[in-house]
Amino acid sequence: MKTNPGRFFEDYQLGEVLAHAVPRTVSGGERALYQALYPARHALYSSDEFARSCGLSQAPLEDWAAFHMVFGKTVPDVSLNAVANLGYAEGRWLKPVWAGDTLRATSEVIGLKQNSNGRTGVVWVRTTGRNQHGEAVLSYVRWVMLRKRDPDAPAPQAVVPDLAPALGADDLVLPPGIDFTGYDFTLSGEAHRWKDYEIGEQIDHVDGVTVEEAEHMLATRLWQNTAKVHFDATLREDGRRLIYGGHVISMARALSFNGLANAQMVVGLNAGAHANPCFAGTTIRAWSEVLDKAEVDAPGVGAIRLRLVAISRGEAFALKGENGKYLPDVLLDLDYWALMPL
Amino acid sequence: MKTNPGRFFEDYQLGEVLAHAVPRTVSGGERALYQALYPARHALYSSDEFARSCGLSQAPLEDWAAFHMVFGKTVPDVSLNAVANLGYAEGRWLKPVWAGDTLRATSEVIGLKQNSNGRTGVVWVRTTGRNQHGEAVLSYVRWVMLRKRDPDAPAPQAVVPDLAPALGADDLVLPPGIDFTGYDFTLSGEAHRWKDYEIGEQIDHVDGVTVEEAEHMLATRLWQNTAKVHFDATLREDGRRLIYGGHVISMARALSFNGLANAQMVVGLNAGAHANPCFAGTTIRAWSEVLDKAEVDAPGVGAIRLRLVAISRGEAFALKGENGKYLPDVLLDLDYWALMPL
Amino acid sequence: MKTNPGRFFEDYQLGEVLAHAVPRTVSGGERALYQALYPARHALYSSDEFARSCGLSQAPLEDWAAFHMVFGKTVPDVSLNAVANLGYAEGRWLKPVWAGDTLRATSEVIGLKQNSNGRTGVVWVRTTGRNQHGEAVLSYVRWVMLRKRDPDAPAPQAVVPDLAPALGADDLVLPPGIDFTGYDFTLSGEAHRWKDYEIGEQIDHVDGVTVEEAEHMLATRLWQNTAKVHFDATLREDGRRLIYGGHVISMARALSFNGLANAQMVVGLNAGAHANPCFAGTTIRAWSEVLDKAEVDAPGVGAIRLRLVAISRGEAFALKGENGKYLPDVLLDLDYWALMPL
Repeated sequence: MKTNPGRFFEDYQLGEVLAHAVPRTVSGGERALYQALYPARHALYSSDEFARSCGLSQAPLEDWAAFHMVFGKTVPDVSLNAVANLGYAEGRWLKPVWAGDTLRATSEVIGLKQNSNGRTGVVWVRTTGRNQHGEAVLSYVRWVMLRKRDPDAPAPQAVVPDLAPALGADDLVLPPGIDFTGYDFTLSGEAHRWKDYEIGEQIDHVDGVTVEEAEHMLATRLWQNTAKVHFDATLREDGRRLIYGGHVISMARALSFNGLANAQMVVGLNAGAHANPCFAGTTIRAWSEVLDKAEVDAPGVGAIRLRLVAISRGEAFALKGENGKYLPDVLLDLDYWALMPL
Repeated sequence: MKTNPGRFFEDYQLGEVLAHAVPRTVSGGERALYQALYPARHALYSSDEFARSCGLSQAPLEDWAAFHMVFGKTVPDVSLNAVANLGYAEGRWLKPVWAGDTLRATSEVIGLKQNSNGRTGVVWVRTTGRNQHGEAVLSYVRWVMLRKRDPDAPAPQAVVPDLAPALGADDLVLPPGIDFTGYDFTLSGEAHRWKDYEIGEQIDHVDGVTVEEAEHMLATRLWQNTAKVHFDATLREDGRRLIYGGHVISMARALSFNGLANAQMVVGLNAGAHANPCFAGTTIRAWSEVLDKAEVDAPGVGAIRLRLVAISRGEAFALKGENGKYLPDVLLDLDYWALMPL
Repeated sequence: MKTNPGRFFEDYQLGEVLAHAVPRTVSGGERALYQALYPARHALYSSDEFARSCGLSQAPLEDWAAFHMVFGKTVPDVSLNAVANLGYAEGRWLKPVWAGDTLRATSEVIGLKQNSNGRTGVVWVRTTGRNQHGEAVLSYVRWVMLRKRDPDAPAPQAVVPDLAPALGADDLVLPPGIDFTGYDFTLSGEAHRWKDYEIGEQIDHVDGVTVEEAEHMLATRLWQNTAKVHFDATLREDGRRLIYGGHVISMARALSFNGLANAQMVVGLNAGAHANPCFAGTTIRAWSEVLDKAEVDAPGVGAIRLRLVAISRGEAFALKGENGKYLPDVLLDLDYWALMPL
């Protein structure tokens, strides 16, 4: 058997490190495609000149593009037989990714727990993306529910990792040299700065994008994510392809420019839930809530913790029903830290 | 309110200069995407070697890509609440845009006129795109009809700018070093040179491209154009998205290769009308008419003034009905100057 | 008449050399787009670092992308009036194509044979793609059936070229410096090496991709292929556009990663048939068969000859019916040589 059937729950060992395949060199092409696929307008990623005015050498690859590339590498080893992508935690962007960099990734198994039905289990992995110098550029935990190949395989000892509910501001890693003291609020697109946002404030990002099959497949392939459900219309009876959850993340993040144009760099991923599946034809909208604010050790820079919610219709600011479950129109509930000019 | 509601007619002051947001650095990615989105084959833009044989240092960004990028920046400040994009005039490409350049844009309000209904008005702006050296790369006038926020707001003094019906050949700015004396008509794709075209000559460009939702959205996002009507299928009762008029321009210009392969560089935009809206599923065809010819001051180079008409069906060379209005199948009527080997 | 009506059968002369138009400079954009359009994961093309570990200076352009670019240039001169693309032979990749290279192409007419119906004929051309240094990067023979403009035009003397049914291993040109002795089977994605494959072995590549109109048009335009049938939905009564056969080749080749991740470089094209037309909505799958293996003169490198079959549904490994004709679900039957670590 030459093809990869994917791993099943009983194939994972606690402490095991999976070295993921297919390193990837990034060029200006990925940036242009990211802008074509999403209404991405954050100035620090759009303009080398703007990035230099913020203390960087050039515009880095969009943080979520870096995330998707690292995530994509893990799919053949982690989630080919996943029933569900359950969550994220402790995600940190550790170094900007530049055009010319080559990314690779490894994942360590940090938790295992068979479900009571005996047919599935949950695997927690901490994934690290590295550049060609071996420097970590991104690290995050995700956990997925996997099928067992053999329902009679013995359950491993349950180990559930102790994950932070959210990163503290001290956990965030700032890009070396980042400096927002000369930040140009005209070029960035909005005048609102860190001090203008209040904890608890909610923002309806207003705009919507109706997504097409061709677009989400282009994006998901660009990240070299091979999960069949995104590409093969024969897998579901209704002939629809499930949109990669990361496509919804990037779409919502780009839509959040309208109201959060100065939430420039994404540096922390506290949590994330793909609340409902997304299919072509959906008009994605987004709203945000300010969860926290913190001072960080870089000139002119503040950190803002945001909830980013993608919805398929319905009203902004509605999240869960009385039963505590996500409303059917909620696609994504993401909790992240971004850097903003003070 | 953190999001941008767009400006309304009464928000503009004569002489006001709007500095548009989100500068953009161009790479090889934009060129590749332009070729993927349009059947673009003009050799001077496709090949660095061909561009060098014409006296340039490398192939520049397609002129219309530069236009779209500058135009896209103006949308949030000029046309978010536009009822209609009424016209263009006095457009000049002033410097080639190279991979690595960063573009930004400003617009000056040069005209204001409230409509007799009291609910809308027309705003004229002269937009200038600049590179990272502050050099103007493109300048053009466009005027749009905008809603008033408050119908009772007083009308400004009407000022209608005095715009040239067309640029003269003396107004055209040629790229430094441009030289067509060594022009290779085999590599360019056609043998027809400047002297082979006669004023009044009409050319049916024969080919057609049926456009898809995914394509025009990719293109329009690539130009960071955020006008909602291009992306949100819920805005119209029929669920269709209005295709950005610039997408039709680029499609028609690319189709015009077949018959005008040597109309290499677009240097002047005299006028343009988006005669009817375009939607996905339309098969775009194009025809051209030679409006004028002129000698210019560069070796082996002539200028040709062309009408470029995009149609959705129907026959080439039909433009307006007996009532003087555009026929329903006409999508675009564009009047521009290009450079051609003598 | 300024537009190109294409050539007809009687327009070709034996020995004639056609210099094709529109040279094309390649950048990082083409690589990114190739990865967005196809699930392309072969590590040597994805990563500059991996390519360097194999003795190359950087990751080259995908071999099939180079093929499509050269092929695209020939369309206006060879196949605009083609009834059918009949076959390929003696295809050899002679030099890697690097970002920054400019490609051009010429074709020599090496065979002519009028069909017995007197209305069509077959033209054989040997096409050579060259880089900006004049070095041949690719050479292949293809033959097409063309309409005659004038059925009464006299038949040329029939000359059918003597083509090799397959290249021998001695005919293959290896990239200078190629060395697989330090090959990293973890990063490449599979442990299977040259010695693990047996002649006659068949591999079902398992995955499927459902193709969309927008995608194949983006791809076909990217190769500057102007054949109308791929773009104009009004040409067929059913409103469908015929998908460029090369799009199916690249899709199938990319899908073959799953089972042939180490068949890195494509160096020879022995034969190919586009067995049935492909339309949007088709879910493309692929299977391979090992036809031959050979030793070649480079450290750690072996050659493997593969049949690559793309199917639209049905079962892997079925190719032809009892009548010797391709089954209706077979889209492509390709015979090629690739380089693999020993």
